[in-house]
Order: sequence, then structure tokens, then C-alpha cells
Amino acid sequence: MSQEISDFYAVIPAGGIGSRLWPLSRADAPKFLHDLTGSGHSLLRDTWDRLEPLAGSERIAVVTGRAHRAAVEAQLPAVPDRNVFLESEPRDSTAAIGLAAAVLVRREPDVIIGSFAADHVIRPPHLFQWAVQQAVAVARQGYICTIGIQPSEPSIGFGYIKKADGLLVDGAPEAATVERFVEKPDLETARAYFADRSYLWNAGMFISRADVLLAEIEANNPELHAGLMELAEAWDDRDRRGPVVDRVWPALTKIAIDYSVAEPAAEKGKLAVIPGHFDWDDVGDFASLAKLNSHGRKNDLAILGENARILSDASSGIVVSQTSRVISLIGVQDIVVVDTPDALLVTTSEHAQRVKGVVDALKLGGRGDVL
Amino acid sequence: MSQEISDFYAVIPAGGIGSRLWPLSRADAPKFLHDLTGSGHSLLRDTWDRLEPLAGSERIAVVTGRAHRAAVEAQLPAVPDRNVFLESEPRDSTAAIGLAAAVLVRREPDVIIGSFAADHVIRPPHLFQWAVQQAVAVARQGYICTIGIQPSEPSIGFGYIKKADGLLVDGAPEAATVERFVEKPDLETARAYFADRSYLWNAGMFISRADVLLAEIEANNPELHAGLMELAEAWDDRDRRGPVVDRVWPALTKIAIDYSVAEPAAEKGKLAVIPGHFDWDDVGDFASLAKLNSHGRKNDLAILGENARILSDASSGIVVSQTSRVISLIGVQDIVVVDTPDALLVTTSEHAQRVKGVVDALKLGGRGDVL
Repeated sequence: MSQEISDFYAVIPAGGIGSRLWPLSRADAPKFLHDLTGSGHSLLRDTWDRLEPLAGSERIAVVTGRAHRAAVEAQLPAVPDRNVFLESEPRDSTAAIGLAAAVLVRREPDVIIGSFAADHVIRPPHLFQWAVQQAVAVARQGYICTIGIQPSEPSIGFGYIKKADGLLVDGAPEAATVERFVEKPDLETARAYFADRSYLWNAGMFISRADVLLAEIEANNPELHAGLMELAEAWDDRDRRGPVVDRVWPALTKIAIDYSVAEPAAEKGKLAVIPGHFDWDDVGDFASLAKLNSHGRKNDLAILGENARILSDASSGIVVSQTSRVISLIGVQDIVVVDTPDALLVTTSEHAQRVKGVVDALKLGGRGDVL
Repeated sequence: MSQEISDFYAVIPAGGIGSRLWPLSRADAPKFLHDLTGSGHSLLRDTWDRLEPLAGSERIAVVTGRAHRAAVEAQLPAVPDRNVFLESEPRDSTAAIGLAAAVLVRREPDVIIGSFAADHVIRPPHLFQWAVQQAVAVARQGYICTIGIQPSEPSIGFGYIKKADGLLVDGAPEAATVERFVEKPDLETARAYFADRSYLWNAGMFISRADVLLAEIEANNPELHAGLMELAEAWDDRDRRGPVVDRVWPALTKIAIDYSVAEPAAEKGKLAVIPGHFDWDDVGDFASLAKLNSHGRKNDLAILGENARILSDASSGIVVSQTSRVISLIGVQDIVVVDTPDALLVTTSEHAQRVKGVVDALKLGGRGDVL
């Protein structure tokens, strides 16, 4: 099932700090560079390892910030230099994925690209790969294809994709058209979606011909598209790239690919979906991270950190230990303790979503040194 | 009221680590060396400052471990060298106070000594001083006199002193005899004591003629008394002190002065008490420390640490910050966070008494490095 697909290129946008995982995730050590599952590998490397059987190591591109170049190349020693796309500053996902699409389509006009976040946890790989294989088959028919996750709970933390009629595509028995995209719902709505099995979680995975993707960007954001074309035209010429990037990149419209491509494509009936049957977690906060690392046991304190020295009677929650300090927990439940050399967080699973507020407060308070 | 008392000598036993305040209190930085009230002074120094108006700086003795000599002398620059009594190892309070009594009575046969713990918080000083002045007057009559604290709640953490008939002593209008000493009671008993105003907290303060104290030790623990006499006889001779200490001190019976002196004296009707009207706190755990530092406000997170950088929505509990790390608390109440360079404690006020268990576990686990 996992043989390489010759016309496929994987694109990994590796941006985003993961503010809800502060102080573990930082500007200079974002979420995708961490081993959050105890696998021994960073999330980025796990993403690469999932995609490599599908695309081959010569055909995986990474779009990341200039500051992360060395770290990314250390994580991915097999990535070809020409497949590392460096952003001078973050311009959101349409710019990141669109740049890769625009450059790759010049190298290979019929290329199909699939974009996959660098910081999600997916298990097992073969179910993910089966979904991508189907999505590629659908993309060959001119659709923009997403992979939707069958919800495991009525989450209010994700957007939803409403699946409609099945699509008849060879090699994609589960393909369906998408009726519409839905923003993060309230709890009542989420419960209704959860009961109605045709609503899937939007995991931000998009597979399509590069030219189809670019045409959709052009239709909805022509200036952004023009900028991407100008960048792509100069990209593979080392002398010309720099000045064009400096001039064009900072002016690109910041817009998520969900809005610039997926939503309008859904309205036109051009968006398809493959339901993913794998476990998927975007590790959105420490409550997710605790769950992910409690090994399925309900009464288990999750511990992350190679040299953790923990003395605890807690049977739930998580301790992240990045120092060699002895950490002692007494009589606290569902606790979240993140111990790093310059910052300490203490909260509970219930309040884990509020961590971003601390990051915002630290920014406002001029304490960027610990962000 | 606070003029010096010519026949009075204050003795400060400065021992005890304060295990329930780990990891703030350590073997090499015991509780009495910390500023736990934000006064800018250590508890030991505050104790000295309370006693100095009564005894004068030439007549305050400190009994402490050899390891703490430098720290104690740094805290108390005015203490005469001959008034620093160094223990080669801890032998409990009868040995510590008895040694001081035995040495001082040789220097001054009619001396009255008062012993006061180095790590209690007492406010305001003048009410404490008034109680001591009365106790000295009672001690001159041959009594062993304690100062009992009027309970502010039905505590199960302290022993109680049952006050009996008033004593007619000039200069001590509140003096009374003691009917008996009571061990830490259960909650029901503590409530009954609290309702019955004649039960006072035992704060471990004893004032008596040195010869009377030594006679009581002799009556109940003759071997211990003999050892103290031998030590005292050699003490002020620099050449002889060392060998005698090495031989005699480690063999002294370990017994608290409450059992060797106060209880038997009470049975013989020789124990008197002065009720203390001052606020008294032995800062027994982090819950006490939180209360002590919340400045009387109920909804207030107490913060201890000069360079504390705290970002918190907690309205109760305490943060002790000994590092320059940013500490962020979200959605936790009655929390206790103690952040030191090599150890971190997270618990709640409710479980503060259990901190000692961690210290015991660390000892057993061979982690003495953080104790």
C-alpha cells in the first residue's frame, strides 16, 4: 500500500509556535521541533517519516522560517536543499503552501501536491497513507481533496467538514464531495455534528494538482497569486531570488488556505474529502498532551522529559521536565506543570486552553525573552 | 517597659531544619536563616531584635550547629563570641538549653535564663517583652515559667498548657500556676480547649533561674545533667573544651525540654505561666506561611522572593520564588509553589503538612543532595 506515488509531492508547512504549549514551545523552539510523544523523534521528523513512503525523500518540501533552517535540516538530513523554502517572515498558510505550489509547478507542470502540518500526531501511519493515496487519486480528477477526521468526541476546538455524496473515483472508494466548511462550533452544535456521522474534523490537509490550487488562489486573491508567480519565476535562480523575496514576500496577503482555497472550492463543488480512519491529534494544549502521553490509562500522570526526577502522588495531568530539578507534587490532580530553565507554568487540564493568554500577557509586558 | 533586666540572659536554640518548609528550608539553609515575613530580616535576627531590649546584646546566647556558625554570626554581628554555643550534632532541646544554662550559671550563679526558638514569628514586640518581664519576675521566685499563647483557633498542631490558679507575684499581674501539659489533641478536644479559655498553646518558651532548671534536669535525667556539668566545667577553657565536647556531647540523652523539665515541674506545682497576648506563629508549613504573608487579606496570593516574576490569576495560596524564572499560574487556587534552583514543590494549602513526607522519601531515595 505504501509504494511511492510518482506524480506526488508532499509539502510540510513548518510554522507556528504553538503558544498554548508555552513554555515548552518557544519562538526559537516551536512545537514541531519537540518530541511530544516520547517517540524519540520530533513531530516534524515523524511527519517526514509518514510521508517518505508516499513521496520519496527527494520529493518532500518544507516551508519554514529562516530562523529554523538549521534545526529543520538537522531533523531532516535527507531533505534536498532545493526543497527547503525559507520564509523571511510568516505570511500564513496560503503564502507558504502557494509558494511551494508555484515553484513546484514550474519544475513539473502536472505535479500533485499534498500539504500536511508539521506538528500533528497521527497513528498508525498506514491508515494515513491509505487516505493520502485515495486523495491523490481524487486530485488527479481536478478536485481539491482534503482528508477529514472522523470525530472521536464533540470537540469545539476544530472546524468541521460536511461530507455530501460519494464520488466515483478509481482507487478512492471512500471519496465524497464536500457540502460545506464549518467554523469551530459551540458545544450544542458540536454534539449534533458528532451524532451526525457526516461531519468530519478539518485537519488542514489539502491534496490537489498544483495548478488547480494556484487557479483557486488566483480566482479569490489575484494579487496574492501574482506575488506568488513573481516569487516562483525567480526562485530557482540563486542570484535573483533574494531581491524578489525581499520585495514581494512581506507584501503578500495573510490568509489561511481554508479561506482562500477550501471554502470557495467547496461552494463550487470542487472540494472533495476522504475520511481518515487514523488517530489524529493536533496537540493543541497541555490537556491534549497529557492525554496523548498517559498511554491510554485514565489514572496516570503523564511525564515528558528525559531526565525527569518526579516525586508525585498525582494520578492525572502532566509534568514536562526540561531541567534536572527534583519536582515534587502533593495532593494535586489534573495538574499541568511545565518546568523549563527560564519559565515555569502551573495550571490544570481544565484551564490548559488559557495558556495562550499568558503568552499574550508576556508579550504586552515586554517579557519577550521567555517567549 | 522595655528596659534591660540586669539578671536576665536570653538563650536562642537555633536548630531544626523545618522539613515542612522544604525545598525553601534546607539542611544548609534552615528555616531560622530565612526572611519568611518580608521584614528584610531572617527569623533569627527578628528573634534577636525582640530580645535585645530585654537582655542587652552582651547577654544573648545562641546554641546552633557547627555548620551554621558563619551564617549565625553574619545575621547577629553583635553577638559575643563566648555566647555562641556550637553543637557538634543535634541532641534535642534539653541538651542545647541545658548546656547554655550550665555554662552561664558558672559565669553568674543567680542568672535567670529564658529560651526562645529562633524561627517563630511574634508581633508586636512590646507585648512579647511585657510577657517576658512578668515571666522573669515569676522565675525570681523559683518557678519555671512558660509563656502560653491565647489560642486564635482550635489548632491540633500544638500542645496545650492548662492554666490553673493565679499566682501573687510582684510585677507579674497575669502569672498563674500550670495544672498540666497536654500533647497535641484531636480536633474535638482542641475545640473544647478553644472554648475553655484556660488552655493556652505551648510555644516552647521557658524562663527560670539557671540553677532551678538544672536541678529539674538533674532530678529527671541525672546522666544528662552530669554530662552537661562536665561540659560546662571545661567550656570556658579553650584548650579543654574540644576533647570534652567530642567525648561527652554525642552521648547526651536526646529529650525535649517539655518532657525533661516542663511536664515534671508542672506535676510538682513548680511550673507557672504568663499568658501572651501577642500574635504568635511557628510557621509550621506553607499554609501558615501563606496566611502570614497574605497581609490579612483573604483573597490574596502570597508572594515571597525578592526577584519574583509572577503572572497569576490565583487569589489564594503562596509562591516562593528563589530563581529569576517567570512563574505563571492559571486557574489554580490555594496553590503552593516553591521554586528553587534544584527543586520544585507544587501542592495546596490543604496538603501542606504532607511536605515532610516528601523529605522523608527523598532521604530514603538517596536524594540528600536536595535536602
